[in-house]
Amino acid sequence: MRTFADYQNKLRSMKPNIYMGGKKISRDDPQLIGPMNNIKLTFDLAQEEKYKGLLTATSHLSSQKINRFTHIHRSQEDLLKKQEMTRTLCRQTPACIQRCMGVDMLNAISVFTHEIDQAKGTQYYPRFLEYLKYFQENDLVGCAGQTDVKGDRKLRPHQQKDPDLYLRVVEKRKEGIIVRGAKAHNSIAAYADEILVTPTRLLTKEEADWAVAFAVPGDAPGIRQVVVTSSPRSRKQLKAPVAEFGSCHSLTIFEDTLIPWERVFMCGEWEFGGRAASLFALYHRHSYTGCKPAFTDVIMGTTALAAEYNGIEGAQHINHKLADLISVAELVYGAGIAAAVKSKPSSSGTYIPDVVFCNVGRRHAGESLYHEYQILCDVAGGLPATLPYEEDFFQEEVGPLLNKYIMRKTGISAENQHRCFRMTHDLIGSSFGAHRQIAGLHGGGSPIMEVIAILGNYDLKQRKEIAKYLAGIATE
Amino acid sequence: MRTFADYQNKLRSMKPNIYMGGKKISRDDPQLIGPMNNIKLTFDLAQEEKYKGLLTATSHLSSQKINRFTHIHRSQEDLLKKQEMTRTLCRQTPACIQRCMGVDMLNAISVFTHEIDQAKGTQYYPRFLEYLKYFQENDLVGCAGQTDVKGDRKLRPHQQKDPDLYLRVVEKRKEGIIVRGAKAHNSIAAYADEILVTPTRLLTKEEADWAVAFAVPGDAPGIRQVVVTSSPRSRKQLKAPVAEFGSCHSLTIFEDTLIPWERVFMCGEWEFGGRAASLFALYHRHSYTGCKPAFTDVIMGTTALAAEYNGIEGAQHINHKLADLISVAELVYGAGIAAAVKSKPSSSGTYIPDVVFCNVGRRHAGESLYHEYQILCDVAGGLPATLPYEEDFFQEEVGPLLNKYIMRKTGISAENQHRCFRMTHDLIGSSFGAHRQIAGLHGGGSPIMEVIAILGNYDLKQRKEIAKYLAGIATE
Amino acid sequence: MRTFADYQNKLRSMKPNIYMGGKKISRDDPQLIGPMNNIKLTFDLAQEEKYKGLLTATSHLSSQKINRFTHIHRSQEDLLKKQEMTRTLCRQTPACIQRCMGVDMLNAISVFTHEIDQAKGTQYYPRFLEYLKYFQENDLVGCAGQTDVKGDRKLRPHQQKDPDLYLRVVEKRKEGIIVRGAKAHNSIAAYADEILVTPTRLLTKEEADWAVAFAVPGDAPGIRQVVVTSSPRSRKQLKAPVAEFGSCHSLTIFEDTLIPWERVFMCGEWEFGGRAASLFALYHRHSYTGCKPAFTDVIMGTTALAAEYNGIEGAQHINHKLADLISVAELVYGAGIAAAVKSKPSSSGTYIPDVVFCNVGRRHAGESLYHEYQILCDVAGGLPATLPYEEDFFQEEVGPLLNKYIMRKTGISAENQHRCFRMTHDLIGSSFGAHRQIAGLHGGGSPIMEVIAILGNYDLKQRKEIAKYLAGIATE
Amino acid sequence: MRTFADYQNKLRSMKPNIYMGGKKISRDDPQLIGPMNNIKLTFDLAQEEKYKGLLTATSHLSSQKINRFTHIHRSQEDLLKKQEMTRTLCRQTPACIQRCMGVDMLNAISVFTHEIDQAKGTQYYPRFLEYLKYFQENDLVGCAGQTDVKGDRKLRPHQQKDPDLYLRVVEKRKEGIIVRGAKAHNSIAAYADEILVTPTRLLTKEEADWAVAFAVPGDAPGIRQVVVTSSPRSRKQLKAPVAEFGSCHSLTIFEDTLIPWERVFMCGEWEFGGRAASLFALYHRHSYTGCKPAFTDVIMGTTALAAEYNGIEGAQHINHKLADLISVAELVYGAGIAAAVKSKPSSSGTYIPDVVFCNVGRRHAGESLYHEYQILCDVAGGLPATLPYEEDFFQEEVGPLLNKYIMRKTGISAENQHRCFRMTHDLIGSSFGAHRQIAGLHGGGSPIMEVIAILGNYDLKQRKEIAKYLAGIATE
Repeated sequence: MRTFADYQNKLRSMKPNIYMGGKKISRDDPQLIGPMNNIKLTFDLAQEEKYKGLLTATSHLSSQKINRFTHIHRSQEDLLKKQEMTRTLCRQTPACIQRCMGVDMLNAISVFTHEIDQAKGTQYYPRFLEYLKYFQENDLVGCAGQTDVKGDRKLRPHQQKDPDLYLRVVEKRKEGIIVRGAKAHNSIAAYADEILVTPTRLLTKEEADWAVAFAVPGDAPGIRQVVVTSSPRSRKQLKAPVAEFGSCHSLTIFEDTLIPWERVFMCGEWEFGGRAASLFALYHRHSYTGCKPAFTDVIMGTTALAAEYNGIEGAQHINHKLADLISVAELVYGAGIAAAVKSKPSSSGTYIPDVVFCNVGRRHAGESLYHEYQILCDVAGGLPATLPYEEDFFQEEVGPLLNKYIMRKTGISAENQHRCFRMTHDLIGSSFGAHRQIAGLHGGGSPIMEVIAILGNYDLKQRKEIAKYLAGIATE
Repeated sequence: MRTFADYQNKLRSMKPNIYMGGKKISRDDPQLIGPMNNIKLTFDLAQEEKYKGLLTATSHLSSQKINRFTHIHRSQEDLLKKQEMTRTLCRQTPACIQRCMGVDMLNAISVFTHEIDQAKGTQYYPRFLEYLKYFQENDLVGCAGQTDVKGDRKLRPHQQKDPDLYLRVVEKRKEGIIVRGAKAHNSIAAYADEILVTPTRLLTKEEADWAVAFAVPGDAPGIRQVVVTSSPRSRKQLKAPVAEFGSCHSLTIFEDTLIPWERVFMCGEWEFGGRAASLFALYHRHSYTGCKPAFTDVIMGTTALAAEYNGIEGAQHINHKLADLISVAELVYGAGIAAAVKSKPSSSGTYIPDVVFCNVGRRHAGESLYHEYQILCDVAGGLPATLPYEEDFFQEEVGPLLNKYIMRKTGISAENQHRCFRMTHDLIGSSFGAHRQIAGLHGGGSPIMEVIAILGNYDLKQRKEIAKYLAGIATE
Repeated sequence: MRTFADYQNKLRSMKPNIYMGGKKISRDDPQLIGPMNNIKLTFDLAQEEKYKGLLTATSHLSSQKINRFTHIHRSQEDLLKKQEMTRTLCRQTPACIQRCMGVDMLNAISVFTHEIDQAKGTQYYPRFLEYLKYFQENDLVGCAGQTDVKGDRKLRPHQQKDPDLYLRVVEKRKEGIIVRGAKAHNSIAAYADEILVTPTRLLTKEEADWAVAFAVPGDAPGIRQVVVTSSPRSRKQLKAPVAEFGSCHSLTIFEDTLIPWERVFMCGEWEFGGRAASLFALYHRHSYTGCKPAFTDVIMGTTALAAEYNGIEGAQHINHKLADLISVAELVYGAGIAAAVKSKPSSSGTYIPDVVFCNVGRRHAGESLYHEYQILCDVAGGLPATLPYEEDFFQEEVGPLLNKYIMRKTGISAENQHRCFRMTHDLIGSSFGAHRQIAGLHGGGSPIMEVIAILGNYDLKQRKEIAKYLAGIATE
Repeated sequence: MRTFADYQNKLRSMKPNIYMGGKKISRDDPQLIGPMNNIKLTFDLAQEEKYKGLLTATSHLSSQKINRFTHIHRSQEDLLKKQEMTRTLCRQTPACIQRCMGVDMLNAISVFTHEIDQAKGTQYYPRFLEYLKYFQENDLVGCAGQTDVKGDRKLRPHQQKDPDLYLRVVEKRKEGIIVRGAKAHNSIAAYADEILVTPTRLLTKEEADWAVAFAVPGDAPGIRQVVVTSSPRSRKQLKAPVAEFGSCHSLTIFEDTLIPWERVFMCGEWEFGGRAASLFALYHRHSYTGCKPAFTDVIMGTTALAAEYNGIEGAQHINHKLADLISVAELVYGAGIAAAVKSKPSSSGTYIPDVVFCNVGRRHAGESLYHEYQILCDVAGGLPATLPYEEDFFQEEVGPLLNKYIMRKTGISAENQHRCFRMTHDLIGSSFGAHRQIAGLHGGGSPIMEVIAILGNYDLKQRKEIAKYLAGIATE
């Protein structure tokens, strides 16, 4: 397994193709440090003894110890471990652990390639296993290029005025395929080793060119990434973990990029477009049942801390709000456990979590998120919005006055009061907090996508039969 | 295992001590048939091959096949089975399966008696095992006498003006103890073989007399039950399962009732009052994670049926409402699965489900219930409120007109339309439906009791440590 | 103005055409007394000095003092008074005041007849004024026959397999028109003097036969009413106003009923079908901004009383729940005030309340109703569901025990405890309470009808212009 | 009336005492331009003919035309106009109009000074009128210094370890009083002419020193302001109104500041501390019934625009979400209208809006706000979070690609798509948007303050009497 330093060295060797704020930047640009610190956790903590077996796993290919973020789930236990690992890590960052992107996509590919091979007699699955060996041996960081920019939402891919609005194969060559298009909301692509690409939706037979899945290094010729980052305001004196992290998303543009055949995992099998899309979504929503409870842990802990510092800890209405937060966290986590316990092996042996439990869990997390922010805001009061800047607390004229006037609960130092409300500002009053809201609602699938997934997979007919039986209506 | 006929015969032999509407009634009074039909399901279906291993279990005492409603949970699997059994049965009645009362209390007693013995050197647990053998061998129906009438809520038991407002020991004799008081909301007591009694709350050392647990036949001398029942309006022509069930609750009054020592499971150990109360609540809330999803199945199926008959099936807003219902059902069920998977054995070997998962599940069920009614009402329209009485549909002058004017979706007969909306009336427009709402909110513990249970068992301090870590505040 | 006795005498003279539970009943059947007691309030209190000017008005036709329930609103003040009258009266019954049906329909007719005349050169408005004089002079009780049974919701009236599924003109004769069809959810028709009928929806030019409005006595030849009633359980000893009221709805069937021309207010003007439907709905939704706050007053008062008797008055979480109830009541009432203040005169001079304010008010009332029930249920506890029957409290053996065990807050007598929780049962645990839920959601228009009304009348384009302006997007 | 240029000139003449980010800045610092642009609207538009009578009023002192933001409400009509003016102006900024701070405080002072004079024989009211003349003649901008920093929330002002944690009089001199303390969340103080100070809470007789109200220029000796600002990211090429505004709040510190007697409006009359606090809150909450609907107009328009550009306009679930937004806007606005219509004159003749209507309106706005953000986020999708920076759209290599891949709905240019989603980012994905959430929840009083105000002013006893009457319980 690599160290974070190994990973950074590898990144430094990559070709600069990242654009940000009108400039091309390298992969060691300071603006990427905050976002990259999430990945750092996955390398650093995997070395720690106490996380052994949780952050690490045994490869079913090589029988070697590997980082769990490169592992294929071969049992219900693996899925439970992945969920627990995700919650554990996401408690150590206000952002998200990010590396789930790769592992969720790897597992999806391990399922659909096998299914295509069975249906079509292709050899994608063995090819994928070769790639997986390479991925595990090199302890790579992958990201998921799934969501196309989509153009006119009322038109199908092949009906778009510009056919590139969904990524597609424009040419097949002996050495590989040439792809063109763009993948949006491509989280962590700027500092991932590999981009794993799949279709984003159901396809029809006119859309064989859009049925394409592959892996590609993030700096391959013909790829440009335009990125946005979001981090809490950096601190000069009052250093704190909360301010050391961030998020980063790319619009990843493929301009006639060559993908060698050994990295192509679907090419033309349009019948499997929807399957690929929904499999990644499913694994990723299962990851959400780990990460969202952890974010609620952060919100909840901060709410409890603000309540204590504001002197209202233990009040009945505060207790009810904390119970609301706990309920969100544990209903979502419980749904993830149920999804793992009710998981089933696919034809390749990879375990697939239960669709309904994953989706009701993810949906509840998404639908509850803004309410969680409201609770923290409500309990913390207005100070997170009007707290003077860090520098003013250290300015000679007004600094001492700020420390005088921030005093509240007896026994809590001015600095700790300051730290508590500055973190609360970072969580609910900053652009970083605002981005977390949008990510929390849409990441891994917007609420309406979960409604579709739930209704598409639920045995509603059986419930109607129950109603008919009770009503005395003859059922077919 | 007994048959329903065996059970009825036993009941007929019991001494009449049931009061209803100003009259003393016998245990084969027609008003009890609807409620008793729930119990019937537990006897009848346990005989069916397809429910073997689900509705039946193997006694850890006798190694005999027993009804699972008399079983002690000896593994996570047992708890999963109990939950699944509960959901399965509760889909066959609009009321509830009711017999969980006994099994939940048996399991609670099997835990706290052992704990008292360990702490105090008493012999309650062996005594309980003897009783349990008798209970399993005779395939008895038990109920839970836990909630006292409580008098002034601001005063403790020993502070009440009338000390009987919490049930208590008034005398200890050689042959047993004499108890006085009343247990409220005592579901199914009118047709249970046995009443299982425990304290309802934390007790202090002044309250040793109130620390009492025991089993007693429902017709023991000195016991009077004042009951209320609730059933859908009975049908004359349009028979349907929905109208064949009901619920029944007793105010069970103990007027200096003798309890022989071999049936006493706590007597004076006030330190265990709260433990006993919370253990029954816990097992019962876990049962709710099975029964409430089943009731949502009924609501959901009826909503889907009404939508179909109203011709609005598949509309986007209907889909969202159905997804809401599915989410409630499966979040609650998922929480119950997680509670079973995370269960731990107690000192007696009985498995205890996870407190937090049980309580967030039960709370979510309770908090969502009225909203579920709203959805069904919304989709069904006003007809459930203004549907003419059954008799009018069979009256010669207006019957044909009613059948003419009830026609709506093509292909659905007048009778089926009628059946659909009559059942909907039974569910949301009847006193039975109204009772279900109250039971659904308060049964097994009101929402505020779950808030208390959640906050009392959750590691909130750990979440504050997470917040402090991220904020850079030194933790103790 | 008539007395209640006058009204009753008139009803007794009407031809029996009411069917209920398979039997034909007369208009003085005991089952109608509860429902009719609401109408009694409108007669009795109109005689009281203190309600002068509120329950009475001055006719703009005759300049005589009339009951406000027969008045045409000629000013904003009239609409404010109508709203205030409605809230005042609805605080004296757990049901609803009911007579708004007639006044809301009269006002609607006074608007659309004038508009038809202006557009078509007809003489409906003068004809209506003649009818109105008769109505006011005789202080009549009217009801609204608007909602058709509608058949297949996906088909328009003229597309139905059975054309009678929307009420229509089947023949025009010299003396009048012959109508056939049925009106559903026809509240209070069983004891109204007059049924006022209008179309229920937008119509197309193929649907001229369905464009019909008229007034007809409730017992006219060819009319049959099939009714359902709902009242709290009647009391034998513990008499209380709450148990003296009820509701009653008819399915009113017109079998080739003759309507004389002088009572016909629309006949063939299909362009005005939707206008007529929406006008009644509008006036009726404005009435809801008076009655729903009053029902919330009842729920709120009962919640506060139950909290007091349960000894939890003043607790923080109780206060928040009471504030929720107050907010519902006053937001809805405030919307009604705004609707009156922003009302505009129609071409006939009748004032029309603001559509958006009426509809957001009614919608909020409907969407909040189940939550209000949940609050009362939550605060009251389980007792409303398991309270023994009234007769048991007066039975010699168990009565004294019930009175012993119902004691709770010091200083409150057993009888008052009993009264409090029996009323709570009537409100939330009875078929009457369940009917109130359905009526509260669908009466005067289901939530989705208000969504349609709001979107159809709101200047959303203006808001998009605001957004475009701020975004710097050129607007047309 | 002044022009914006006059106002700016005056500000430039003020003594620099503003601290921000560790530096002292002048009042023409570029960071204040965005916030100040709100004030600009109040000057510029007051000159426009079409806003005459809405943005202007006639002084009851001088009979001169004045800016309505300096006017005392002398009628219900004045309150309606103030509310309408507020909504009108707040549709032209994504921030808030800000100048309501001054007018709300002036009106509060105009009430309580008269009441103190009546009770105590003081001469505060005439003194205030002199000040008001000066204020109106000079068309000043005022702000409200009300909220103290409060220290330990469990201790009263006089119990604090540091008595300065509530602002207080430390000395009375012949020429005036000396005050010390700090006012938090002091919106717009950095560019207001005048700071109007009142107590923040109920006071006891030990707290006469804390009972102090006065007016003081923002740069008076002994005052320091430490400020935070918040604005959308400034644009270089894609200029748009949305990005031209901002907000600014001061922690205003009074270090032994002299207030001349002619500017002192309360000094020692502790009985009026709570009255002063609640009066400002009341006027300000009434202002919220104007500004919050306007902000919802902005959210709603943007939601509708994003729906159109995303090609989902008119979908049923979108309609329901828009109806939710409309309902929030108009319920709040309607409550404000009702508050004005039910306003009453105080002893000084200043009209006081109805407390309950103001508070239920403000509470509903606050409780709904996060849900409104959720709706816009839901409809807009993830793009507001991952939209590349403005500069990248104009960078030569990737700019054309971004414009290619942002295309969606046919007929909408890339620039307009870009504009729409950049504004959405400004509203929901920026620190500015996050600040708006906190301000929207806590500004003018946190939800719990409205609960307290509602319960303190509502006739709940009357509702209990209604319940008792219906239950048949004798009332006192």
